[in-house]
Amino acid sequence: MSAQFVVNYETSPEHYRHWTLTVDGVIATLTMKVDEDGGLKEGYKLKLNSYDLGVDIELFDAVQRIRFEHPTVKTVVITGGRDRIFCSGANIFMLGKSSHAWKVNFCKFTNETRNGLEDSSQHEGLKFLAAVNGACAGGGYELAAACDEILLVDDRSSAVSLPEVPLLGVLPGTGGLTRLTDKRKVRHDHADIFCTTSEGVRGQKAKDWKLVDEIAKPAVFTQAVQDHAMKLAALSNRPNQAHGVKLTPLSRKIVADSVHYEFVSIDIDRNARTATLHVKAPSSAPANDVAAIEAQGVHWWPLQMTRELDDAILHLRTNEIEIGTWLLKTSGDAQHVLAADAAIVAHQSHWLVRETLGLMRRTFARIDVSSRSLFALIDENTCFAGCLAEFAFMADRSYMLALPDSPEQAPKLTLSGMNFGLLPMITGQSRIARRFYDDVASIAAAQARVGEALHAEDAMRLGLITADLDDIDWADEIRMALEERASMSPDALTGLEANLRFNGKENMATRVFGRLSAWQNWIFIRPNAVGESGALKVYGSGSKAKFNFERI
Amino acid sequence: MSAQFVVNYETSPEHYRHWTLTVDGVIATLTMKVDEDGGLKEGYKLKLNSYDLGVDIELFDAVQRIRFEHPTVKTVVITGGRDRIFCSGANIFMLGKSSHAWKVNFCKFTNETRNGLEDSSQHEGLKFLAAVNGACAGGGYELAAACDEILLVDDRSSAVSLPEVPLLGVLPGTGGLTRLTDKRKVRHDHADIFCTTSEGVRGQKAKDWKLVDEIAKPAVFTQAVQDHAMKLAALSNRPNQAHGVKLTPLSRKIVADSVHYEFVSIDIDRNARTATLHVKAPSSAPANDVAAIEAQGVHWWPLQMTRELDDAILHLRTNEIEIGTWLLKTSGDAQHVLAADAAIVAHQSHWLVRETLGLMRRTFARIDVSSRSLFALIDENTCFAGCLAEFAFMADRSYMLALPDSPEQAPKLTLSGMNFGLLPMITGQSRIARRFYDDVASIAAAQARVGEALHAEDAMRLGLITADLDDIDWADEIRMALEERASMSPDALTGLEANLRFNGKENMATRVFGRLSAWQNWIFIRPNAVGESGALKVYGSGSKAKFNFERI
Repeated sequence: MSAQFVVNYETSPEHYRHWTLTVDGVIATLTMKVDEDGGLKEGYKLKLNSYDLGVDIELFDAVQRIRFEHPTVKTVVITGGRDRIFCSGANIFMLGKSSHAWKVNFCKFTNETRNGLEDSSQHEGLKFLAAVNGACAGGGYELAAACDEILLVDDRSSAVSLPEVPLLGVLPGTGGLTRLTDKRKVRHDHADIFCTTSEGVRGQKAKDWKLVDEIAKPAVFTQAVQDHAMKLAALSNRPNQAHGVKLTPLSRKIVADSVHYEFVSIDIDRNARTATLHVKAPSSAPANDVAAIEAQGVHWWPLQMTRELDDAILHLRTNEIEIGTWLLKTSGDAQHVLAADAAIVAHQSHWLVRETLGLMRRTFARIDVSSRSLFALIDENTCFAGCLAEFAFMADRSYMLALPDSPEQAPKLTLSGMNFGLLPMITGQSRIARRFYDDVASIAAAQARVGEALHAEDAMRLGLITADLDDIDWADEIRMALEERASMSPDALTGLEANLRFNGKENMATRVFGRLSAWQNWIFIRPNAVGESGALKVYGSGSKAKFNFERI
Repeated sequence: MSAQFVVNYETSPEHYRHWTLTVDGVIATLTMKVDEDGGLKEGYKLKLNSYDLGVDIELFDAVQRIRFEHPTVKTVVITGGRDRIFCSGANIFMLGKSSHAWKVNFCKFTNETRNGLEDSSQHEGLKFLAAVNGACAGGGYELAAACDEILLVDDRSSAVSLPEVPLLGVLPGTGGLTRLTDKRKVRHDHADIFCTTSEGVRGQKAKDWKLVDEIAKPAVFTQAVQDHAMKLAALSNRPNQAHGVKLTPLSRKIVADSVHYEFVSIDIDRNARTATLHVKAPSSAPANDVAAIEAQGVHWWPLQMTRELDDAILHLRTNEIEIGTWLLKTSGDAQHVLAADAAIVAHQSHWLVRETLGLMRRTFARIDVSSRSLFALIDENTCFAGCLAEFAFMADRSYMLALPDSPEQAPKLTLSGMNFGLLPMITGQSRIARRFYDDVASIAAAQARVGEALHAEDAMRLGLITADLDDIDWADEIRMALEERASMSPDALTGLEANLRFNGKENMATRVFGRLSAWQNWIFIRPNAVGESGALKVYGSGSKAKFNFERI
């Protein structure tokens, strides 16, 4: 998966093979018409509007473009471009051929994209309507369920279904089970029947069981889609007038074991199995009023830096799976970062600022759910200020160099208003609140120091870092910590970090990543799914799956 | 695991090999001194106060006896009986040799026992103090963490530790990670260090990091234990005076594929891979005042039935792992059950009633977390009334026979006060509230019908059952549903049911069973833990584990 096959998450509408994005007034329509021969890898055909990672990368890109390039769109209609087919879910042959790591990474990204729809609906007023024009199975239904509403064509044949358990021996693991319960509140016994019946549920029963929000006969379906889209649009607070910001291609250079963007870089040490993820502050004072922010557009530092960071994370997660620890570093002028933060705080109701904040929130949250150990290194010439200080708080450990005799040179940690709620984790908590289990006094003590350049001793006293090391110990301690980390079972670390990072509050998103995904990961490696005669392996071969019937 | 080796969960203090139970006034002391040669199976020695299922069965029994036989005990001190060793956790060689199914089942039971300590502390006022007299590692620390307080000897050597990740490549999966966060609120970066440092944390630092509640020097340790136990006792509302009820042996007969108790029976159909779990109502009106309840003691129907049921569940879970579906049936006179319920409701503040209710709550909750499909069959001559109606609500599906033309003969479902909060799931919700996602109107509609013998049509209208079938369809529908169920991947069903049954609220207990256990199950089957060179396999062999370093 390294030199030969690198997945690139950047694309644009001109390059889509599977989706069409059209905009008509306040309504954008995303039509899925998957090119059977357009699989990201060899060896499977994407029949019946089934998807693989490549299809989902286009969906992710399309939603991103609606967010930034089409700010006056209020509702996105997601529909199928094939006759009587909405979407038949993740391609089973792709799943059957994929490695465990690939399956899990694929599911994580698709989960993030679907959670992202809900995140945009909740925070940025962008509404989503699933116009289910035909068969809607598995991941197809999971995508529909991530929309604000599901409208199902009532044509006596089109059904929604989650056939994973009976057909494939796996779970509807891309949020399916969790949305049935947490979001749609389908009664547990109805859900049990629904998830064990491969043919699914149609028409009025689908509505009665809360599997869909509305049904419409074929003759009136198009009109019903329009009506529902307009009703959702009325709930949106996206602007009526605004000029979009074109998401131009990122400048990315891959040189040996490094990846360079303008504000982000990655340096991989293959022996140590670490990647240093380095984020730079803006090189000059960033825009501080709305006109200037709009003028800078895609090059406004918070937006450009975050787009680069998101791409870097996805690259590392997909293409560098043996690099187990990410070292989080920052550099540059803290004042510029704090100025950018101040502009975001001041203008957060402006659509572009709000969308940028949303992208930053989702991107930082992507790091939280990444199965990599995260160590923040706050040493000389770093810039852990404001939004960049979040890297210290998202880390599993943060080490800070203490130079009590050189107060000027000593590394500093500087808080801003951005650290206290504007960049929540998927739990809805700020990372500082997570750190202190919402303890009011500890949070207030930190908040009282906003804007102050805190030395290691202060940061330690406030509980904001894990350890303060002097310059005699620094190199050895860090080296030892990294060596130790690299020696441990990657699986155990993944489980450990997933549990410790999400250390309290639960909601639908945490239950997708924590509970549902963990069960799915287990099932994904069980012989009953992926063994020679496992259900996922034999699907479509004419053979029947053979199970070990022990209940575990 | 069937004919040759049957695990029996019944024991009594005279038969303990590993624990000593002593009672001194309001304080009971449970001393763990594991007999190295007393392993439940061959092939490992239980060195250093490490435990296997057999050791934990004794702990479970001992706590049960304190609950019922020693009602005036207010604090249970759990301590180690070996010099400078509290407990070194689950025996690693046992884990290394065990099948996946055995490991998972073992962890589930130990989790239930530990959660049971907290359940008794919360509901019945029985407090627990971990008197950590020496090394306290892995499952030893997890046991301590399940107590209300941890007192650690401060002797410069005794440490608490969770060395699973660095030593064994698995998680502290018996609640360890979850209690660190949810209960003890250990900061996530401290927890990260604690869980990746095999030598653990001692003395003041253990207290500073909230890993223990108090430390005491060896010279004053005994006194400190006494003082803390008395302080906890002051928080207890267990009775000052009461006569305990002796838990006499259950009468259990195993005949071919059936198990018979007085009020509970199991009938296994090995071809269909089903077990019918049959619970009978009392054969005469049960005691309805405190004196009569005390006089009936261990034979009071709610107590005896529940003890039998608990044993039956544990037997099925451990010894019949290929029996994937449990059919829940009841029979007898509904009026007797409703009378028993009324007595429980009326006298719930009496210690014996309260303890019995607690046992019933925990036993029913054990069914909820059992990895078996649960179908309730409400047909002729059944008795789904009051507490026995819970079987309809805990089921994944409940089928009820409708006989509209024979109102007398028609099966009935009868609600009582017990169905609305006295028998909560581990979520804290009643099963009816779980069913309706706490919808007030739906719950009130059901509550308005308390005491009424509801026919299938009524039960269906109220949403209390999954399906009402007439007598023409009944046999075929049930047969087909069972055959379908039996044809599906057991792993996928386990994941499905775990997600759908716990369909909303999360707390520490649900996070132990849902999130932590799912991650642990995944890790337990990964080659990095259990492969030829996996960490769990090679532990103690002198070889080093070899990992596949892909981060998943």
